[in-house]
Amino acid sequence: MDYQQILENIYQSILPYAKEGKQADYIPELAKVNPDQFGMCIHTIYGEICSIEQADTRFSIQSISKVFALAMCLSIKGDDLWKKVGKEPSGTAFNSLIQLEVEKGVPRNPFINAGAIVMSDILLSHLDNPEEDFLAFVRAVSGDDTIDYNEAVATSERENGYLNAAIANLLKYHGTIDNDIESVLHFYFMMCSVEMSCRELSRAFLVFANHRRKFSYAGVELTASQVKRMNAIMQTCGFYDEAGEFAYLVGLPGKSGVGGGIVAIYPLQYSVAVWSPRLNSKGNSVMGIKALELLTTETKESIF
Amino acid sequence: MDYQQILENIYQSILPYAKEGKQADYIPELAKVNPDQFGMCIHTIYGEICSIEQADTRFSIQSISKVFALAMCLSIKGDDLWKKVGKEPSGTAFNSLIQLEVEKGVPRNPFINAGAIVMSDILLSHLDNPEEDFLAFVRAVSGDDTIDYNEAVATSERENGYLNAAIANLLKYHGTIDNDIESVLHFYFMMCSVEMSCRELSRAFLVFANHRRKFSYAGVELTASQVKRMNAIMQTCGFYDEAGEFAYLVGLPGKSGVGGGIVAIYPLQYSVAVWSPRLNSKGNSVMGIKALELLTTETKESIF
Amino acid sequence: MDYQQILENIYQSILPYAKEGKQADYIPELAKVNPDQFGMCIHTIYGEICSIEQADTRFSIQSISKVFALAMCLSIKGDDLWKKVGKEPSGTAFNSLIQLEVEKGVPRNPFINAGAIVMSDILLSHLDNPEEDFLAFVRAVSGDDTIDYNEAVATSERENGYLNAAIANLLKYHGTIDNDIESVLHFYFMMCSVEMSCRELSRAFLVFANHRRKFSYAGVELTASQVKRMNAIMQTCGFYDEAGEFAYLVGLPGKSGVGGGIVAIYPLQYSVAVWSPRLNSKGNSVMGIKALELLTTETKESIF
Amino acid sequence: MDYQQILENIYQSILPYAKEGKQADYIPELAKVNPDQFGMCIHTIYGEICSIEQADTRFSIQSISKVFALAMCLSIKGDDLWKKVGKEPSGTAFNSLIQLEVEKGVPRNPFINAGAIVMSDILLSHLDNPEEDFLAFVRAVSGDDTIDYNEAVATSERENGYLNAAIANLLKYHGTIDNDIESVLHFYFMMCSVEMSCRELSRAFLVFANHRRKFSYAGVELTASQVKRMNAIMQTCGFYDEAGEFAYLVGLPGKSGVGGGIVAIYPLQYSVAVWSPRLNSKGNSVMGIKALELLTTETKESIF
Repeated sequence: MDYQQILENIYQSILPYAKEGKQADYIPELAKVNPDQFGMCIHTIYGEICSIEQADTRFSIQSISKVFALAMCLSIKGDDLWKKVGKEPSGTAFNSLIQLEVEKGVPRNPFINAGAIVMSDILLSHLDNPEEDFLAFVRAVSGDDTIDYNEAVATSERENGYLNAAIANLLKYHGTIDNDIESVLHFYFMMCSVEMSCRELSRAFLVFANHRRKFSYAGVELTASQVKRMNAIMQTCGFYDEAGEFAYLVGLPGKSGVGGGIVAIYPLQYSVAVWSPRLNSKGNSVMGIKALELLTTETKESIF
Repeated sequence: MDYQQILENIYQSILPYAKEGKQADYIPELAKVNPDQFGMCIHTIYGEICSIEQADTRFSIQSISKVFALAMCLSIKGDDLWKKVGKEPSGTAFNSLIQLEVEKGVPRNPFINAGAIVMSDILLSHLDNPEEDFLAFVRAVSGDDTIDYNEAVATSERENGYLNAAIANLLKYHGTIDNDIESVLHFYFMMCSVEMSCRELSRAFLVFANHRRKFSYAGVELTASQVKRMNAIMQTCGFYDEAGEFAYLVGLPGKSGVGGGIVAIYPLQYSVAVWSPRLNSKGNSVMGIKALELLTTETKESIF
Repeated sequence: MDYQQILENIYQSILPYAKEGKQADYIPELAKVNPDQFGMCIHTIYGEICSIEQADTRFSIQSISKVFALAMCLSIKGDDLWKKVGKEPSGTAFNSLIQLEVEKGVPRNPFINAGAIVMSDILLSHLDNPEEDFLAFVRAVSGDDTIDYNEAVATSERENGYLNAAIANLLKYHGTIDNDIESVLHFYFMMCSVEMSCRELSRAFLVFANHRRKFSYAGVELTASQVKRMNAIMQTCGFYDEAGEFAYLVGLPGKSGVGGGIVAIYPLQYSVAVWSPRLNSKGNSVMGIKALELLTTETKESIF
Repeated sequence: MDYQQILENIYQSILPYAKEGKQADYIPELAKVNPDQFGMCIHTIYGEICSIEQADTRFSIQSISKVFALAMCLSIKGDDLWKKVGKEPSGTAFNSLIQLEVEKGVPRNPFINAGAIVMSDILLSHLDNPEEDFLAFVRAVSGDDTIDYNEAVATSERENGYLNAAIANLLKYHGTIDNDIESVLHFYFMMCSVEMSCRELSRAFLVFANHRRKFSYAGVELTASQVKRMNAIMQTCGFYDEAGEFAYLVGLPGKSGVGGGIVAIYPLQYSVAVWSPRLNSKGNSVMGIKALELLTTETKESIF
């Protein structure tokens, strides 16, 4: 499979969508990003790496960080994690309070905001140096020690994060989180602020694509079965209320973020990261989803 | 892979769960079934067939019929189908009216009852002899001309089907269905009443596992891409509000029915059907889910 | 108090609103009514009767009939009625299925459609000749034997009444109603189709305004306390999700219907009926509400 | 009417209910109160004052304070208040986030927690010294300068007030409140912590019962129409999701608090306060509601 050629073809095909959608602007720091950017990179498990355009430009990974958090939480708590958070698709927007109230403070899955806030709380309780340890894990899986938080973004989110503060307070009310709300939200926003390029992200997610290899990075250890199950959760819950659409169009497990990044995994074959800041109405990158749809159509490869 | 041995091992392992759960009893005809039965059958795309226990006993396939209906609707309407029904997981019980009211009469996906009622309406509008044509298709994919409706079950459901009648009326109110409610519900319950054995079901679903083969049965034609996308929908929506759990534990696309049957697909490898009437609180077969979990654990094969 | 003069002043004041709003048109029979009509009539407990404009034109009383049904149900079942229907304001539109599903088939109050369908079922079960008996009661309280159903309206509603049929099926599913759905809906729509003029309605409601008088009409008997409590229910539940607004602006218990009629009661003083077909977005008569607001403002009389 | 005798009769009649229900214990300070207390006091507009039992024991008025806040907000903003908060009964528990999310940050009415938090924000924005000014108004209407906040209760609530903090954050997210969340919640909990006796409360509420008298206290001025409309809001929204039940049983506008106090108003006749800490499942005083039901039954006086 000539992935490089395929990526280049894809890029030509999606150019007509370059001005569709609108970048996230709910915080000043994200609104500053030039929306007319696009990058894409594939890492295969055989060592091939192909990339196009701004594959080396770093961007705010936002919710993609929840996958790293899930790996750490599973490593720490194993299946006990599921006592505090579910694993069903939410069927509603990622930041809804309704479901959380109805279900008495147990978030539907780890990838909606409420679920990620619960994971932040768990990491705060179990890690010696939460911020350092989280970063160390991300750097280990992506093999790059320069990856870092963007504190300006984290601060900007925290200052405007009333909805996430509402969620955290509701979780605290139901006794789902243990630490104080300020610390939990601070750590949550720090995780979301990590900046990575498509190349770094696709390399990092290769560890989730290759469950045959021992998973042990910076003290985070997972069994093959756990890695596969993380893929299952990405498949059913990775795209908010567009999870079904993404499975239908692309057919790969993955995770998106409001920074415009998407990573997807073809188990035992490759991981791919794509980035473009303009989002559709569900909060997913327009060109990103289009590019991944074409990738599985062109290669005729998907998990189905 | 010695599937026969694996099935036999599985059977031994799940025996402790033989009395867990409760069979569907909301209609007299289903309540009559002996709950202490179990069957399982695998068809691989290489022609292998393995089965254990009551793999040849027919049972009411109920919601599994919705997969056949989806194949026919996609063949008839193509992507226009998605104007009348969504493809997102529902996040709620399969028979909830709430979501349908909030979303103004567009069912969340084709596998919740509302979605299947919409598909019934489409088939009624487009088929010359809906009941004969549906049965002809099921018989064609399963290669067995003795498969048939159970009118007693259909009648029993129709007489007690107030919730489905409520759904159909709400769909009619929103203009989502065209035919008269009585006819739509009659056809819907007929489809659900089809009786098949595990052997027949797993053979029938082999056509969805093997998208490389031309899909053309009794006039129903699908492209490879459409077949794959049907798998995607089974993955995200096939198990009501247990779709995430099933993906996590089993990792295969599939569909369950309240008769206690479950079929699952490992694309380009095999299809498997399992049946046992006792259901968990989500309406899925207890032993069935356990057996499939063990199958993918033992074989180390899943889509993830 | 010179009510005649007050009514005439009111009429002048509300003329600017004569073209606001839109009459109900969900059934052909209601859409045929000339929307530019207005009538108003007061009956005091001292025997005074004042009226203006088309106070003698009959119109479809629609949901106002639910008050008559409530009187009959309370007479038959007493406080046992409240086992099948609540008495809290609904906080949602009068025909919502959501609340009914969440609350497992017990309608929030007797004045939302679900509640009135339950009352229809009760009357069907307890009256010898439900249609004749209901009409006899309405004729008795209004002192006019020519009041009658409009079968064309009832039939028209039944043929398009998918939402009410959905509600009835949901009630049947939950076991809240005993009779068959067709009969219940038929009777429900017949009750709603009764036609009365403002003069007849205000006379009829005088019996609810004067709880000091013995309440015994056509076999329907209520205690003073029951009559007062019916007023309480009209106060909190009589105007769908505009109950608070009506209490705020008008300050009298009452009941509205989509035919454009409103009746209100000033206990131990008067009953008043007003009619104009154009409705606001909540389904209440625009000129009707305005007229009643002015009535209590001008007279400085309200229950508060 | 011999109110003193009636009160004494009532007390005998409700004694069997003395151990029913459970006092609020969600904060330590409220849990400390001896639950086996009862007091009741009536003030008529003719100057009569009758009381029984612990009518002079002060307790935490909690949500009853929202009526004072509403008077101040109406005085400041007039009908503009209704742009920020509705006036419809909520149909749900007083602290639900669901409705607030669905209705995009506009609380259903001023008496649910969200509505009172919005009023706190308004008072913070418009008063020179919010805490002093609020207290001055309460002291003025009750004619007692020793009435005060209980800072221990306020602090205790603030420290455990996660649900109210969630509500405040959601309001801030929707832009409904202007001041910072900490200050708004601080002021909100201070208002709720005011301690008054039944005698003081019934005297204070006399000003709402007598709309014929000029309403001008400590700078808060209301028209007769505004006072009457406050009664309308107490009638439809004063008892959370038991508003209909209270109207049905008691038939007077009023307001309850989780401290076990209830005040009710018979316009142009009397105001009455009752207190007993044990609450029913809806958060209203068991003996309090019983006592008021008997009061209107015995006196045969209600607004209906």
